[in-house]
Amino acid sequence: MKFCHTVVARAAAACLALGAFGAHAQSSVQLYGLIDMSVGSFQNSGADRLTRAESGRMTTSFFAFKGTEDLGGGLKAMFNLEAFLAADTGAAIGRTFWDRQANVGLGGSFGNVFLGHNTTSMFVQGLMFNPFSSSMTFSPTMRFLYSTAAPYAVSAGGTAWTNSILYTTPNFNGLSGTLQASMKEAAGGSNSYAASVLYAAGPLAAGLVYEKEAIGAADQTNLLVSGSYDFEVAKLYAQYGQTKDDAADEKYKMVQVGATVPLAGGSVLASYGQQNADEADVKVKTFSLGYDYFLSKRTDLYAVYMYDKAIGLDKGNTFAVGVRHRF
Amino acid sequence: MKFCHTVVARAAAACLALGAFGAHAQSSVQLYGLIDMSVGSFQNSGADRLTRAESGRMTTSFFAFKGTEDLGGGLKAMFNLEAFLAADTGAAIGRTFWDRQANVGLGGSFGNVFLGHNTTSMFVQGLMFNPFSSSMTFSPTMRFLYSTAAPYAVSAGGTAWTNSILYTTPNFNGLSGTLQASMKEAAGGSNSYAASVLYAAGPLAAGLVYEKEAIGAADQTNLLVSGSYDFEVAKLYAQYGQTKDDAADEKYKMVQVGATVPLAGGSVLASYGQQNADEADVKVKTFSLGYDYFLSKRTDLYAVYMYDKAIGLDKGNTFAVGVRHRF
Amino acid sequence: MKFCHTVVARAAAACLALGAFGAHAQSSVQLYGLIDMSVGSFQNSGADRLTRAESGRMTTSFFAFKGTEDLGGGLKAMFNLEAFLAADTGAAIGRTFWDRQANVGLGGSFGNVFLGHNTTSMFVQGLMFNPFSSSMTFSPTMRFLYSTAAPYAVSAGGTAWTNSILYTTPNFNGLSGTLQASMKEAAGGSNSYAASVLYAAGPLAAGLVYEKEAIGAADQTNLLVSGSYDFEVAKLYAQYGQTKDDAADEKYKMVQVGATVPLAGGSVLASYGQQNADEADVKVKTFSLGYDYFLSKRTDLYAVYMYDKAIGLDKGNTFAVGVRHRF
Repeated sequence: MKFCHTVVARAAAACLALGAFGAHAQSSVQLYGLIDMSVGSFQNSGADRLTRAESGRMTTSFFAFKGTEDLGGGLKAMFNLEAFLAADTGAAIGRTFWDRQANVGLGGSFGNVFLGHNTTSMFVQGLMFNPFSSSMTFSPTMRFLYSTAAPYAVSAGGTAWTNSILYTTPNFNGLSGTLQASMKEAAGGSNSYAASVLYAAGPLAAGLVYEKEAIGAADQTNLLVSGSYDFEVAKLYAQYGQTKDDAADEKYKMVQVGATVPLAGGSVLASYGQQNADEADVKVKTFSLGYDYFLSKRTDLYAVYMYDKAIGLDKGNTFAVGVRHRF
Repeated sequence: MKFCHTVVARAAAACLALGAFGAHAQSSVQLYGLIDMSVGSFQNSGADRLTRAESGRMTTSFFAFKGTEDLGGGLKAMFNLEAFLAADTGAAIGRTFWDRQANVGLGGSFGNVFLGHNTTSMFVQGLMFNPFSSSMTFSPTMRFLYSTAAPYAVSAGGTAWTNSILYTTPNFNGLSGTLQASMKEAAGGSNSYAASVLYAAGPLAAGLVYEKEAIGAADQTNLLVSGSYDFEVAKLYAQYGQTKDDAADEKYKMVQVGATVPLAGGSVLASYGQQNADEADVKVKTFSLGYDYFLSKRTDLYAVYMYDKAIGLDKGNTFAVGVRHRF
Repeated sequence: MKFCHTVVARAAAACLALGAFGAHAQSSVQLYGLIDMSVGSFQNSGADRLTRAESGRMTTSFFAFKGTEDLGGGLKAMFNLEAFLAADTGAAIGRTFWDRQANVGLGGSFGNVFLGHNTTSMFVQGLMFNPFSSSMTFSPTMRFLYSTAAPYAVSAGGTAWTNSILYTTPNFNGLSGTLQASMKEAAGGSNSYAASVLYAAGPLAAGLVYEKEAIGAADQTNLLVSGSYDFEVAKLYAQYGQTKDDAADEKYKMVQVGATVPLAGGSVLASYGQQNADEADVKVKTFSLGYDYFLSKRTDLYAVYMYDKAIGLDKGNTFAVGVRHRF
């Protein structure tokens, strides 16, 4: 049975009656998220091709709460609670339930400080500078940065760091930066830090991220340099990244070039990337070509073809069509 | 401490300010659910009788989010995220966290298409045509269709199918239908499909569901035929179902007859069902008699007696009183 | 990407259009919670000191839904769904997902009756009568009542009881009481009951809680006597508690004295407690001193020093600063 909930009635009646917020009635809680489902034939290099109905291939499905409270005097308090999910099975997914992000922060003219399980700047710049954004399947950049198994470089810290402090500077005419550190706490814990700068003004954007990750036995030094330029007939992207595994004394290098081209009311997305290792024989080439059509600001349809080839393994071909709905 | 959240303020302020929705301001997210708690003496056939405080005996407790976006031109986007819970222990329950339902869909004059973890039509028609609806304890139909252990037929696919596509037709003068298929994806996966038709107009309703389930080693062919007629002094129900276990070459047959009778501002609920197996000596008879009284459209009190007898096992007697609250 | 959700639009449009609530438009669902993050140097007696970014040291972080429906005639229906979380890792924490509380209740002139996983009165009076409230780290009372390991008395039932009925009386000129019982249900289940009385009027408050817990092999008889008086220049607290382990024939005794002193727009918090055992050589002394400053009604900053010393173990010293944000 379908019953409306009555947030309006509650807020209008209960909040005004209690006067709980007074001058801070502009405070807010948002419930939001995204569900991405696709059907297609999926095949990574060296793997069997399988027909699947899949969640989160273009954007990992999630639901979330967040809010901002105006504390007066230019200060604000903020929180984020974001949970991944797999809409194809109904499963909560991730290393923890609120693995996408969980934090509380204070902001002001000095910038923002967040404490908790904070999204890394490597992930943010990784997704900003490629046409397939945060797609863990179709974006070569994301495949190279956040794989959990060979033949790719294996990410030590993932897209969010536990027990961390994240500082973001104010925006100075398009220039901003971040600093992040995670507490080791105990043997085997994460003792990592990162710094990033980002410039975005007009058609030009560029960014640099440096990460030093030490998580248990893993010891990585990571670097990502990114740029994009929007020519209007096309937006072009380029990225260069290094993942240096200090324990194994191996260095992986990745490069990605991409373009987003407006066409017939939607966008053509194209991205090519490859990842090499100096010491080992790892070489992966991935190319994705897609078309993305927005039915509204919140809902889009997409079709993607991906070619994936790792050295010594058979090539993989993936075809998928899907829908994303933001709420 | 009790603080109001400020969805109103956020939406009125933030959304209007951002102009995030423009022409689609009629979009919506709903937070809803149900908590069912009862106390009583519970005893299945062959089991000990235990005094319990129980969650979800009449309707499995859950919380959920859903939304609909008007895309214009008769099109709409929809999503559902629904999670079972046990209010007696606070546990999240189910095969996955969002096990009740998790999907995204598009609707229009052609009907609706949903992708994800979709509720089956067998479950929907199972609950529509018996007085105890989706009660996994008191409804003989639900006990026979969705048991997880002998002496009943064991359900292979449950009430929602993973990795599935669900198509529902528009309603043609009371006649509608569904098609559902789940992708096998890998060895051991579910490769199932189903079709259903439903007629509901005035006092008469009738339905037919066919399921072919192949999930790992399980291989079932299921059928459910249902009808109801509302005579106003009483609504009568009848159901006939088959569960054919193709691997074990056994066929279970179930029948249910029931009535809902308005009385003293509430409803008397009565349902008798039995399940037989041709090849094995399985025979279960279950009878439930209840009274349901609504304090409001959202909150009701109920009292139920259930008799349960499986061949070769002692009979069971259950008495319970409970409350359901929808939000 | 950031999209507003549209609870307002839904409620204003959908609810009014559907007329779903009619006379009960005053019904409500609240989404609320708290995130507490701190950084500091944490050390229990006998343990290593570690630098940490921690969730929930002052108040365990959580998110929750609740609602109240006016049934007319002085009756109301209520529900609570509350889930703990660790913002430092994003983990859902607790014995179950909705471990903080999960229940449905009916209220009226007779008081309130809740069914489900209900917060105990021992926990409520434990937190009401000490300056550090429900802090499982800094409040000596909470450390003594709810520890899960030696050298403290080990709590059998925790802060909420499963399968329980909770009755709360109306408030008679400041005097109120509770009765709670949990159903054993099966071998190893909880078969516990509790009673409490509370008086709170003007500056004076006092309370008494008695618990008889039988959970599997655990068999405890617990008692807590508490009092506070608000002199305005300072609020003073005192508590005496007993935990009698009937199986091991050991009795633990705890005492706590504390004060909250308004200072410079915030509050100084001080609490000293000790726990002794007659039969065993357990003796723990804990002292916490803090300063709590509210930036708004919903957001506060705190700094705490804690000294912790158990007999036979090295002393521990903890320093932490943190922020709590309620939503």
